[in-house]
Formats: sequence, structure tokens, C-alpha cells
Amino acid sequence: MQQRAIETRSSVIEGASKVFERAGYGNASLSEISTQSEVTKGALYFHFKSKEEIALAVIEAQHARSREAGDKVTSRGDKALPTILECCRVFGQQLLDDVVVRAGIRLTFEASVFDADVTGPYQDWAETMTQMTAQGQREGDIKAEVDPADFARYLVASFTGVQMVSNVLTGRQDVMERIRQMWDFMLPAVAVDPSRWNTEELFAARA
Amino acid sequence: MQQRAIETRSSVIEGASKVFERAGYGNASLSEISTQSEVTKGALYFHFKSKEEIALAVIEAQHARSREAGDKVTSRGDKALPTILECCRVFGQQLLDDVVVRAGIRLTFEASVFDADVTGPYQDWAETMTQMTAQGQREGDIKAEVDPADFARYLVASFTGVQMVSNVLTGRQDVMERIRQMWDFMLPAVAVDPSRWNTEELFAARA
Repeated sequence: MQQRAIETRSSVIEGASKVFERAGYGNASLSEISTQSEVTKGALYFHFKSKEEIALAVIEAQHARSREAGDKVTSRGDKALPTILECCRVFGQQLLDDVVVRAGIRLTFEASVFDADVTGPYQDWAETMTQMTAQGQREGDIKAEVDPADFARYLVASFTGVQMVSNVLTGRQDVMERIRQMWDFMLPAVAVDPSRWNTEELFAARA
Repeated sequence: MQQRAIETRSSVIEGASKVFERAGYGNASLSEISTQSEVTKGALYFHFKSKEEIALAVIEAQHARSREAGDKVTSRGDKALPTILECCRVFGQQLLDDVVVRAGIRLTFEASVFDADVTGPYQDWAETMTQMTAQGQREGDIKAEVDPADFARYLVASFTGVQMVSNVLTGRQDVMERIRQMWDFMLPAVAVDPSRWNTEELFAARA
């Protein structure tokens, strides 16, 4: 894609995210997205065939940003167990800081409305966390009897629910503290030595 | 309400649940709801002002059914910890058996579309589970250092995510097994003696 096309696409994704985050899929209009993106309706239709296509592009951009943040954490080469915790902390922070991430998550929950297949991101994270859990076992931090795939699925599902209920009840005001508490409730089941991992320290370090 | 009005309302809630569960809030039409309920549009409008009002009635009916099922479990007078597990098992079973429950949960996730306040059911369950956790502490089954409100919030959030991700990835085919596994991952953090509670037995007993 030419530089200008990339910039226009990116403006639409940013603008659409603001609209989707505020109004949800059903109530978002292409006029609003055009205004919010500062992209004419003509240019909008040149890049996207429909509101559904824009929504899918936002979900894709959200997942790309989360993956990127996750890859940055995993590339540090720290041990797997604290890396999994740090991924959760970073995703929580993204929900607070990045409107594209918030919009993508809202659209994922609303995906049934526009018949999108949103299994990909869940499966992608479940697979990554399965591998990290197995690595944590090889490093002696995660109990050998834990089934990596079962724990990964539980972690992804639990994180999904924790941030969602935090959003419903507090507009995500308590999301970081609830994610930290999630780990307090998980560590005794999975860590060889739960007392070795102080979630308050791990979450405060880069907060 | 007269008997006939109650019956009509109940038919609408059943019929609307089938439509909402299949199509979601945005794609559900009042014509379809009328057809599915076998209630004329005239009668539909007599009882409900709008699609939104029907959706709110479905959410209310879902929460009433879940509460009723929960109350039935708690009224047995068993100890609190196995009662909390049994509540989770029963709610999972309701998601499989009861279209009104499935529709209510789907509408709760989509509630942002129609600006409904869905904090009530989450808070209601969090409060009930807070009390049950405190009772489990008095009975010596739940660790004294667990904060009942924090655990209750985590349990409600985690359950929400577990059943939601099971729905996205398997159409809820594995929901009972994932709820059981959730408890395997929770018990070591909260139970005084985790080995005392065999989740496979507890979930198989009445399954």
C-alpha cells in the first residue's frame, strides 16, 4: 500500500475506534466514523466496503497491538511465569490507554451482532499461553501436574471475564487491581512456590 | 396481573428468548418475536412498548431463574464451599438447558447496544457469594485470609469469562468441564484443605 493509503486506513481505524467504543457496533454510523476520522465518506468507501469491514479491521488492529505488546514482553527473555503475569499487566494497561484496544474488545463481545468469527484471537492467546506454561514447567516454576492447555484456556477466559466485569461495574477503574487479584487467586494452583511471586511488587514495578 | 396477561407475557419472553439467542439484539425483529411467541403484534405492543423493553424482561427473567436455581441449592443447608461449587454447576447446566437463560446472558453481553444497566445481576451474585465465602470461613473450609468480597468478585468475573469463551470456542459444548476446571484452579487459593474437594465427584454427583 502507498503511504497515503496506509495513513487513511489508520485514520479510519482510530476514528472508528472512538465511535465504536462510545456507541457500540449497532449505534455507530458511517457518517460519524467519517467525521471522527477526518476522512471523507468517498475515501472511507474506497478503503472499506461496509461498517462490518471497518469493525473487523478494528478487531484485527486491536489484536495486532496486543500481540505486539505481548511479543515485546516475551522477547525480554525473562522466565515464563513472570512473563505471563507481565503480559496480563500490559494488556490491562492497554485497555486503559489505547482506544483501539478498548474498541476491539467491545466489538469482540458484540461480534455476534455482525456475525464475525472472533475465535482467532482467543485461540491465538490460548496457544501462546500454553507454550509459556510448558516453558514455566521446564523452568521449575509451574507445577508439573498442571495441564498447560487447560490452564491457558482458563487464564484467557478468566482474564476476559475479569476485565469485562470491571468495565461493567467500575468503567475499568479497578481493572489493574482485579487483574492482580486474579493472579493471587491463580498462583497457589499453578506455582511450585506461590510465596516466591509477590503480585503487588510485580504489578507495581512498571505501573 | 390476570392469568391470561401472565401467560401472554410468559409466551413473549419464551419466544423472544429464542429469537434473541439466535439473532442477537440488533438483528431480532418484533415480527419474528410475534411469530415465535404465537402472540399477535397487537398483544405484543399491549404488554411491551419496545424491543428494548422485551430484552430487559428477558434479562430479568433470566436472572430470576438463576436466582431461583441458586436459592434452591443454598436452601439445602449444605456447607458453604460445596454450595458455591454446586451453584456454579447448576448455572452451567441452566446455560445448556434453558433458552431464556442463554438469551439473557447474550443480551447482558450486548446490553451496551441498548443502553441497559446490567450491573444489578453481577452485584447481586457478588454479594451472595461474599456472604457464602464468609460462611465458608466460619465453617472452617475457606482460608481466613481470603477477602470474601474480592474472591466473590473474582468468582463472578471468572465464571462469566469461562462460560463466554466456552461459547465462542465450542458453542458451550465444553462448558461444564471448563467450569469444573475453574474450580480446580481456584480451590488451592481458597480452600483450607483443597484435597478434600474432588471436583469431578462434586460435578458428577447430580450431572
